[in-house]
Amino acid sequence: MPAITLAKAAFERITADEDRLHAYAWLDFDTAIAEARRMDAKEINGPLSGHTVAIKDIFDTADMPTACGSPIYEGRQPNRDAAAVAAIRAAGGLVIGKAITTEFAHLTAGPTRNPHNVAHTPGGSSSGSAATVAAGGATLATGTQTAGSIIRPASFCGIVGYKPSLSTISRSGLTLFGETLDTIGGFGRTVSDAATFIGVMAGREDLTTPKANGAPRLAVLATPDVADAEEYALAELNRVAKRAASKGACVVDLSADAEWSALLEAQMTIMAWEGARSLAYERAMHGSLLSEPLRAYLDEGAAIKTEAYLTAASVRHKIGNRLCEAIGAFDAVLTLSAHGEAPRAETGTGNPQFNRVWTLLGGPAIHLPTATGPKGLPIGVQLVSAPNTDANLISAAKWLESAL
Amino acid sequence: MPAITLAKAAFERITADEDRLHAYAWLDFDTAIAEARRMDAKEINGPLSGHTVAIKDIFDTADMPTACGSPIYEGRQPNRDAAAVAAIRAAGGLVIGKAITTEFAHLTAGPTRNPHNVAHTPGGSSSGSAATVAAGGATLATGTQTAGSIIRPASFCGIVGYKPSLSTISRSGLTLFGETLDTIGGFGRTVSDAATFIGVMAGREDLTTPKANGAPRLAVLATPDVADAEEYALAELNRVAKRAASKGACVVDLSADAEWSALLEAQMTIMAWEGARSLAYERAMHGSLLSEPLRAYLDEGAAIKTEAYLTAASVRHKIGNRLCEAIGAFDAVLTLSAHGEAPRAETGTGNPQFNRVWTLLGGPAIHLPTATGPKGLPIGVQLVSAPNTDANLISAAKWLESAL
Repeated sequence: MPAITLAKAAFERITADEDRLHAYAWLDFDTAIAEARRMDAKEINGPLSGHTVAIKDIFDTADMPTACGSPIYEGRQPNRDAAAVAAIRAAGGLVIGKAITTEFAHLTAGPTRNPHNVAHTPGGSSSGSAATVAAGGATLATGTQTAGSIIRPASFCGIVGYKPSLSTISRSGLTLFGETLDTIGGFGRTVSDAATFIGVMAGREDLTTPKANGAPRLAVLATPDVADAEEYALAELNRVAKRAASKGACVVDLSADAEWSALLEAQMTIMAWEGARSLAYERAMHGSLLSEPLRAYLDEGAAIKTEAYLTAASVRHKIGNRLCEAIGAFDAVLTLSAHGEAPRAETGTGNPQFNRVWTLLGGPAIHLPTATGPKGLPIGVQLVSAPNTDANLISAAKWLESAL
Repeated sequence: MPAITLAKAAFERITADEDRLHAYAWLDFDTAIAEARRMDAKEINGPLSGHTVAIKDIFDTADMPTACGSPIYEGRQPNRDAAAVAAIRAAGGLVIGKAITTEFAHLTAGPTRNPHNVAHTPGGSSSGSAATVAAGGATLATGTQTAGSIIRPASFCGIVGYKPSLSTISRSGLTLFGETLDTIGGFGRTVSDAATFIGVMAGREDLTTPKANGAPRLAVLATPDVADAEEYALAELNRVAKRAASKGACVVDLSADAEWSALLEAQMTIMAWEGARSLAYERAMHGSLLSEPLRAYLDEGAAIKTEAYLTAASVRHKIGNRLCEAIGAFDAVLTLSAHGEAPRAETGTGNPQFNRVWTLLGGPAIHLPTATGPKGLPIGVQLVSAPNTDANLISAAKWLESAL
């Protein structure tokens, strides 16, 4: 299909929903058509041909403004594409618009709503990205995760979210929050689509066309904080595990010990510390244009004592390595993506509690939508594995996807 | 001293030398004066008060263009400061101008010359930064290192260069080359100045005011490729080691085995792979404006097979960790910063061979100027240590600085 036809059809779908969803920070028919014409003229053909792609509004784009969900950067027009965006275009992906992010990809929500029920949040920080893919507006969308900003919205919106291992994709042209946490990833409707997408951004053939390894070795991980989750979410995790076992997977139970909470705290300390440092300019020069919660959060981050930060870094290294070693015996760890269904929009974008530690450890995480909860909103499971075992995790996720 | 007085004096010094050195990509009296007035009016007083700071031209600055040493970005005016620049200004450092970088901080040289002899290179990629600090134009300057872009120019220009552990300083607002290699650091005339400077950019009190630990345990590291260095450089390394021992340091000999060359190759593979990915936009959209050597280098990087990259990543992890463990027994490893004196400018910016592995490992590295070579140009030694032992390395470097 010519890119121009694709662009027109995508615009029809998106605009029909946009008043209800508010998924886009920037959407311009002429720009998208110009890009489609360029691609058709150059006969660009690649693994993303036929895909429309929404770009989270913290990735620089040369033809569309990049506001980072903040009035500080309203209308800011970068003069280049982020490296990930350039890779998407080179692979034939048609960039269709900029998807709404929470303020600087932190917690302060934008206007985006959940396509399954607009009274509910799509999750954050990659709010617009997850919402538009779930609504069929774009077939792929970029995201970033510092705590739970890919897996959580994927869960709330009922689509596949894939956060690869830390540093898999160049962050050139990305507005940073957490220097050692921010990880570029994305959303799609199948594991295969999401893996191809991440493989393209990373320039990694082993992810675009991963081997099928057969029935995986799975560990169902009970963390000390599972009691915080909804019962139906835990029941679904167990149902998925049983189903996997019945289809031939080796499934064992694993439990994270008391050190889990040390890792959780370490992630929170490091994230706040790094956020205050990465947003030093905005804090110093445009503090009055930051939301009150973000300003308070950055003030707290700036006040963290060096000793507390160094302790957190050491916990990450020592306890984190032990946990990575423990899970390294499995193809994937099955665990919760979120507490349950998407909360109502007025309460915020949800809680990344079940994602923080995995982001800290730097291994890959994939959300698989598997069911709906009591309100009819999507729920599912998270698959994670040790750092730099992405191809293997994709294979396990694909297996599970077809087993369900 | 009021910032305005400082600015005027700095401009006098810089302009007297600039026709000879070409250290600055951008220098504007009115902008610097306006910034000095702002600082005086706000009575900003901090650990960098009294310092003039040159910013490598790959850090975004809100009041000065950022061209990255490339015609692609000539005149590009960012609308924010990089996080590191914001931290410098908040600490009282007076940003005086943008220092010339090689093209995208790779090897293609700008016009900058060595202040000790203008027929010679100042080194790269932080060419202007090292040259202006050596010439007394600015008292501090930012740098970045992907292979040897801080330690090498510090050595050639006879000043202190300090590359902290990977991820010590937020790269927000920095134009990236190597996602897992690029490290922000800087230049000063003493270890104390450089440490304060890095501590400010990192927001780390333990670096701005590190403890003095007394005589260090040092290892003199002979790598299998030392034969590539000049004899006088090796003789100087031995002289420094003997001097340290005579002053009370425990000095032992250590040798890196055959695995050294595997690490060296891994750094080169990862750097080329990551460079091609980080510069995806420039390569795809402005290829004709890249220098021929950089274009060829990025083509090679793009052609690296995924398997070769994954092997390099595994070498980095496994062999690298073993080497970090081995050097972890010492406060600092004493080794070569460069092959010898600065080569002549027409031959390029010199060779980062003795820096690559240390950047790959992610630990801190400090160059200490200690002598001059046969042509009267500066030489010195490099101190390195295991990742995240920066405060300890600073202490060792300070001790050695006063022992010499």
